[in-house]
Amino acid sequence: MQKLGFLGLGIMGSAMARNLVDAGHDVTVWNRSSAKCDPLVKAGARQADTPAAVVSASDITFACVSDPEASSELCFGPDGVLEGMEKGKGYVDMSTIDLETSQIIEEAVIGEGGRYLEAPVSGSKTPAINGNLIILAAGERSLYEEALPAFDAMGKMSLYLGDVGSGAAMKLVVNMIMGTMMAAFTEGMSLAEKAGLSTQDLLAILDAGAISNPMFRVKGALMQDDEFSPAFPLKHAQKDIRLALLLGDLLGHGMPTTAAANEVFKRARSMGLDDNDFSAVFKASQS
Amino acid sequence: MQKLGFLGLGIMGSAMARNLVDAGHDVTVWNRSSAKCDPLVKAGARQADTPAAVVSASDITFACVSDPEASSELCFGPDGVLEGMEKGKGYVDMSTIDLETSQIIEEAVIGEGGRYLEAPVSGSKTPAINGNLIILAAGERSLYEEALPAFDAMGKMSLYLGDVGSGAAMKLVVNMIMGTMMAAFTEGMSLAEKAGLSTQDLLAILDAGAISNPMFRVKGALMQDDEFSPAFPLKHAQKDIRLALLLGDLLGHGMPTTAAANEVFKRARSMGLDDNDFSAVFKASQS
Amino acid sequence: MQKLGFLGLGIMGSAMARNLVDAGHDVTVWNRSSAKCDPLVKAGARQADTPAAVVSASDITFACVSDPEASSELCFGPDGVLEGMEKGKGYVDMSTIDLETSQIIEEAVIGEGGRYLEAPVSGSKTPAINGNLIILAAGERSLYEEALPAFDAMGKMSLYLGDVGSGAAMKLVVNMIMGTMMAAFTEGMSLAEKAGLSTQDLLAILDAGAISNPMFRVKGALMQDDEFSPAFPLKHAQKDIRLALLLGDLLGHGMPTTAAANEVFKRARSMGLDDNDFSAVFKASQS
Amino acid sequence: MQKLGFLGLGIMGSAMARNLVDAGHDVTVWNRSSAKCDPLVKAGARQADTPAAVVSASDITFACVSDPEASSELCFGPDGVLEGMEKGKGYVDMSTIDLETSQIIEEAVIGEGGRYLEAPVSGSKTPAINGNLIILAAGERSLYEEALPAFDAMGKMSLYLGDVGSGAAMKLVVNMIMGTMMAAFTEGMSLAEKAGLSTQDLLAILDAGAISNPMFRVKGALMQDDEFSPAFPLKHAQKDIRLALLLGDLLGHGMPTTAAANEVFKRARSMGLDDNDFSAVFKASQS
Repeated sequence: MQKLGFLGLGIMGSAMARNLVDAGHDVTVWNRSSAKCDPLVKAGARQADTPAAVVSASDITFACVSDPEASSELCFGPDGVLEGMEKGKGYVDMSTIDLETSQIIEEAVIGEGGRYLEAPVSGSKTPAINGNLIILAAGERSLYEEALPAFDAMGKMSLYLGDVGSGAAMKLVVNMIMGTMMAAFTEGMSLAEKAGLSTQDLLAILDAGAISNPMFRVKGALMQDDEFSPAFPLKHAQKDIRLALLLGDLLGHGMPTTAAANEVFKRARSMGLDDNDFSAVFKASQS
Repeated sequence: MQKLGFLGLGIMGSAMARNLVDAGHDVTVWNRSSAKCDPLVKAGARQADTPAAVVSASDITFACVSDPEASSELCFGPDGVLEGMEKGKGYVDMSTIDLETSQIIEEAVIGEGGRYLEAPVSGSKTPAINGNLIILAAGERSLYEEALPAFDAMGKMSLYLGDVGSGAAMKLVVNMIMGTMMAAFTEGMSLAEKAGLSTQDLLAILDAGAISNPMFRVKGALMQDDEFSPAFPLKHAQKDIRLALLLGDLLGHGMPTTAAANEVFKRARSMGLDDNDFSAVFKASQS
Repeated sequence: MQKLGFLGLGIMGSAMARNLVDAGHDVTVWNRSSAKCDPLVKAGARQADTPAAVVSASDITFACVSDPEASSELCFGPDGVLEGMEKGKGYVDMSTIDLETSQIIEEAVIGEGGRYLEAPVSGSKTPAINGNLIILAAGERSLYEEALPAFDAMGKMSLYLGDVGSGAAMKLVVNMIMGTMMAAFTEGMSLAEKAGLSTQDLLAILDAGAISNPMFRVKGALMQDDEFSPAFPLKHAQKDIRLALLLGDLLGHGMPTTAAANEVFKRARSMGLDDNDFSAVFKASQS
Repeated sequence: MQKLGFLGLGIMGSAMARNLVDAGHDVTVWNRSSAKCDPLVKAGARQADTPAAVVSASDITFACVSDPEASSELCFGPDGVLEGMEKGKGYVDMSTIDLETSQIIEEAVIGEGGRYLEAPVSGSKTPAINGNLIILAAGERSLYEEALPAFDAMGKMSLYLGDVGSGAAMKLVVNMIMGTMMAAFTEGMSLAEKAGLSTQDLLAILDAGAISNPMFRVKGALMQDDEFSPAFPLKHAQKDIRLALLLGDLLGHGMPTTAAANEVFKRARSMGLDDNDFSAVFKASQS
């Protein structure tokens, strides 16, 4: 039986690790503040004292931390992933990190004889809990195939996208479409308001037609209640659109609609909406 | 039993009239070239020689023609709707017409003692055939209520939106969101291409997440085959976005994302894509 | 000696007529409220009771009124231009009017045997007073040539641009470039502010370089004093940008930068800045 | 008498150094390929073998190289600026470099007891030759004051803008306004073409009015001849707009008009116009 490790038990990580345990996998966990390990240990996981110890005890180790700096620290820090890495072991970083960081980690892992996969996810807290994440894997294909049973426990879909960097790039494309679509939606919602139309009716009509989608349905209802608790914080949504535009820039690819949406999100940020849900761009469209 | 009339048997009208007949309604039809009446007569409809004759024979007469000029001609021309109009009768124009034309027709119908409803539809040929249109009604509410059984035969949803003009305005809002969303989608699809990502994978990921919708699914697959036969012609999509922007202009309402999308559609038009499906804006995003 | 007429003595018209008189021309004037004729009569002009009387008394009659409706009324109303028109006389409408109105007036004037020129001007009150207007003439070329001495008295430059409509179209192009340039300027000014740079320094640097121009110089200084008294009202500037975009739309010509600027002006309008100078778009760029 | 040094004799640097020599300054020069020193030596300059030797021989040393990497190499490389730096000496980097590089150099120079100024210039080859550059200085004010006689020989204007970083930021603001203005100009020029108006007339009208400026005059004439030899390469213009947008992004400052212009420049780049003059964005606006 495969031995799995999981590093980083934040909102996302603890839900993902729990799904691994519940699916019957043999899982060793670690978190910087060890209290977060308790519920998982109760559910059947083992606990280790350092990232290195998790890697030593596991065939494949997964990680999910908050940003590129945390990913680097986890890998290169004292008692970090590299210290436990050895020939044949797999390391799967499911954090959202940039191409450069991902390549540096890949090189270091391979340097120790290991195998590496970046596997950022699409989906937030609720899909993480329900095992409904979408997993965007890129790097060593053999590792992807061995990790599939684990991915199946954490997500409803996993895709192997190619070389390291493809996972992160794909996530940017998805989030760029989603953000621009949200901007378009809020421009329509606010136009309806100003034209004296019922946004309730608009939502019903949208939901009955060819562009019916869960985001309009869920966020549209919340907008009407002026409810913008963050599922996906606006500042992160704007960052992803900006990074997608920069990717386009590198490739000499114009994206005028996306660029306009980015400016609306930036205006929303200057209105102090950074930590609201990204649907709060509605307030910028209204003003 | 209500006696219904139907004027204008083009692609949309003949499908809508057929659904009325098939639902067991007593329907009298007319079309400028009378051959189009034949299949409906075979299916059980009566045929009349003029629009006036249809109105005379019916409690409620529906019309669906191509543009505001055709609507005016139908109403005010020789042997037109007005000549058959009398106290209590209803006239429901389901064409997509502008506010001014709709108000002129409303006034004339009321002047003859009749009742008027504008009821543009959202949806194209296939939903018309399957009785899955979305009907955006505005004008005389009592007529809306009496027309409900007929609307139920033609559409899967009908809404009463308020005064004349609200139906047309709502349709613009819906089409503006749809068009801008299409532009955002094609910018993402073309970014994926330029970044060496698989658009097949992108479509699968989009379809698994919060913005999954029939349009991305259907049009995305067709785009990959470079297939742009017109379900909704690009020139009409651009016209609707432009009209929505003008509505915003009247209301002093900025819509920068929509305005950027409009310019992409205009560039697509200058590339000669007027009569392709509106998803052909993909070609402008690619270039 | 040529006999000239002038109809409409508003802010622009009275300054233009005065320059004709001061240059030694024989001028007959009319205004709806006749008191506005007094200073001109003192300066040497004759006064007539109706537009028709002015036309009867003149070889070439100039007009400058506020909008297309006023132009139509002046031409077609009782005792209007047409009633005095006869073979060989010239009529030069210097108001800013749309293509359709201009063509209708042209046809009517020609129908009476007369000759017609549209001649909108670029420049506002001060250039009108100083005889520094730029005159954009279009229509009958022989009339343009005969009107040159009068144009020389009113403007520093006059151009013959072609068929009726070309004058109005050229004015839109000029105002569209000016408006978009103003939006770009205010985005830079506000970026400087937010970056803690001195706008005073920025203005000095701009004025020393390749894009040095009177508008940045004059409006930039006023912006720093938060002074936006209308030389060119913001609502009119936005209208001209919108009309230029519509012209582009008719010609299938995308203008994304202009479209983005238009949305900023629209947001400025929704902030209540309609009657400020168009440089008040600065306030939208700042927020 | 002040002893001056000059490092980097490319197109800009050799013209700037020459103006120092011609103004009677005592100048020691260095260039990677020493042949470029010959004309300056003939004109009266001394030559040194290394950057360190120039710094040792000079009170104030100026540098003008192509990019941040070259600036770093010049400062930190073997026989570089730092090796000659000592208490009281001044170092003025007139290259266009980013904030981070500028701060690192500043810190190192101060660490050796020296003083530092960043002083990027606005203006290209011709103003460099004619001593008409605009110099945007930031850093140590006492050094700015001592460098003034030298700045006066190289430029027609120099400004002290504050802390290190302000010079580079100001240059971005200026270039961002210039680039967006160029995009607006080309959208108007191409609209005129499509509307059948004479661009010759348009240029004459623009040049007579409130937005008359050297750039429209010079570049407009060249555009009509389809002449786009690079005075300011398009790829650099786009890079500066992008960096200005990123600065806005950091400050939470929306710049929608600029963002739209950036997308037009990006499209021009994807059309293969990277090494044309930035006015070649005209070709993107035309298509």
